[in-house]
Amino acid sequence: MIKLAVDIMGGDNAPIEIIKGVNIAIKDYDDIELTLFGDETVIKKYLIPSNRVKIVNAPKALDMGEKDAISAIRKNRDLSLVQAFNAVFNKECDGVVTAGPTQGVIAGAHLIVRRMRGMKRVALCPVLPQFAGKNRLLLDVGANTEIRAEHILQHAQIASIYVRETQGIKEPLVGLVNIGTEPGKGRDLEKELFTLLSNDNSVNFYGNVEMKEILSTPCDILVTDGFSGNLVMKTMEGTAKAMGQALKEEISRTLSGKIGYLFMKKNLHNFKERLNPDAIGGAVLFGADGIIVKAHGSSNAFAFSRAIYQARQAVKGHVVELMKEKLVDIDG
Amino acid sequence: MIKLAVDIMGGDNAPIEIIKGVNIAIKDYDDIELTLFGDETVIKKYLIPSNRVKIVNAPKALDMGEKDAISAIRKNRDLSLVQAFNAVFNKECDGVVTAGPTQGVIAGAHLIVRRMRGMKRVALCPVLPQFAGKNRLLLDVGANTEIRAEHILQHAQIASIYVRETQGIKEPLVGLVNIGTEPGKGRDLEKELFTLLSNDNSVNFYGNVEMKEILSTPCDILVTDGFSGNLVMKTMEGTAKAMGQALKEEISRTLSGKIGYLFMKKNLHNFKERLNPDAIGGAVLFGADGIIVKAHGSSNAFAFSRAIYQARQAVKGHVVELMKEKLVDIDG
Repeated sequence: MIKLAVDIMGGDNAPIEIIKGVNIAIKDYDDIELTLFGDETVIKKYLIPSNRVKIVNAPKALDMGEKDAISAIRKNRDLSLVQAFNAVFNKECDGVVTAGPTQGVIAGAHLIVRRMRGMKRVALCPVLPQFAGKNRLLLDVGANTEIRAEHILQHAQIASIYVRETQGIKEPLVGLVNIGTEPGKGRDLEKELFTLLSNDNSVNFYGNVEMKEILSTPCDILVTDGFSGNLVMKTMEGTAKAMGQALKEEISRTLSGKIGYLFMKKNLHNFKERLNPDAIGGAVLFGADGIIVKAHGSSNAFAFSRAIYQARQAVKGHVVELMKEKLVDIDG
Repeated sequence: MIKLAVDIMGGDNAPIEIIKGVNIAIKDYDDIELTLFGDETVIKKYLIPSNRVKIVNAPKALDMGEKDAISAIRKNRDLSLVQAFNAVFNKECDGVVTAGPTQGVIAGAHLIVRRMRGMKRVALCPVLPQFAGKNRLLLDVGANTEIRAEHILQHAQIASIYVRETQGIKEPLVGLVNIGTEPGKGRDLEKELFTLLSNDNSVNFYGNVEMKEILSTPCDILVTDGFSGNLVMKTMEGTAKAMGQALKEEISRTLSGKIGYLFMKKNLHNFKERLNPDAIGGAVLFGADGIIVKAHGSSNAFAFSRAIYQARQAVKGHVVELMKEKLVDIDG
């Protein structure tokens, strides 16, 4: 059985949508056991009872707008997020899933679950919407605003293990986010990384990737520092939102556009779904001594069930154990 | 009369589309005089004769894929781009328009036109597609991969002059590209810049802007370093391309989608046009002692005519003179 801790109180739609997400996951995957950390009264009201679900009463949530997540976590050991992360630290659970605030998840990884031995920096790693037949990983998107090349090399190494074990891709292709494709492009960081990645036997290095190829590159994994990754991720989000809005406006501008819409409703719905992050689940936090999946803050029940699925796949693939072996290998 | 030099040989569709672009511009704007640098035989074949157009025979083009633009420009003074830039240095023209390679434009700015006195770093500044009623400027997008906060402050100052004089916005709103909206977010560079921009009287500072707001922010100008700006710019391009492709695929998947398309053809065309960079023209290169407009490499005639329009507006607004005054002001 795969044992996962679930933070019921984190997320814009918590706790109800989160509990409903648990119901979906328990029905869909019969090899998981979930421990729910949240308000017992509400949970009991919405949960479909199952002998694979335990409840720990933890009604206090980490505020979604919390500015100082580190202090909040240090001072409030009774928060649902803190208790769920503790279950991973205590090895009662193999992983944790939360839709709580990003800074809280990063702080929790450092302060509670702790980094794997030899791991220099954690990384937050979302999966990009599927285009050209690929679900690409982008990291880091914000755990480290300033970082050294050797840390990003480590990210490339452990992300390769993750993709290999969860997606069954034998030698995942790793690209370096850059402003040109030729070697020698970019800042000192990219130049140094290009050499490190080229010389590393455990990484299948593709080379530099320009961001106009973000959704068409053959790479499975794209690495960069947390500041750049965050800009790329959010620019995609902002562009998609503005384009969706513009499409809507243009269609509703004329009668024939509105008639066309009636014929095309299903197609446009499918188009929208292709960009829907809900189908993916969330971002994985790499580098902690346990699986941590951060679902989108705005997750609905379906999205949250997909985040539970992500955590399940990572535990099944023994990625933490394999990453640890790799890190010992590096240290040695 | 506004005197502009035009590089006829730069761009993927040069020289024919560039010459046709000249024809459009000469017809549309009766206050411009153009000096064309390019292959005289071809120009004479496609040019609609006008007493406001002069031709200088310069058939040699800077290769669009040139890896070492600096050496190429130093060694080949007969290149059309070099001769066009020279016309600005010699004050025969007020500005130059080219669809040649970006690195050639940046090198030409430094080596031929030269920086304005007091200007620390040039910046390449495209105009983003109009959304929510605004044509936003983003800079730098690649002239400087590593840069100091004081240089970006200077970019904010002169971009403010440009927007004021060309768009008639009295106090353009300047945003700092960042990974969060609160002060204190970002790298050391952003933290330092936040203070500098907050304390500068000549900049109407809005604060930090997250990139999910890239096309909806109330800001007129977004500033960042050249590496980050390039990632943002190209991510927009890549996302728009992938989304356009996905929309096409979904529509053509079913018969009713195809029928809907017949009703919606005009609307979808308008949607596509809203994202079309051709309507904007190109990117302005700030910091050189003359107006330099870099049209897209893939410019067609219409796009190139818009780039000429951009250069005309900048000359009309006396932006170089005003920027120089501002720089003297800083030095003093």
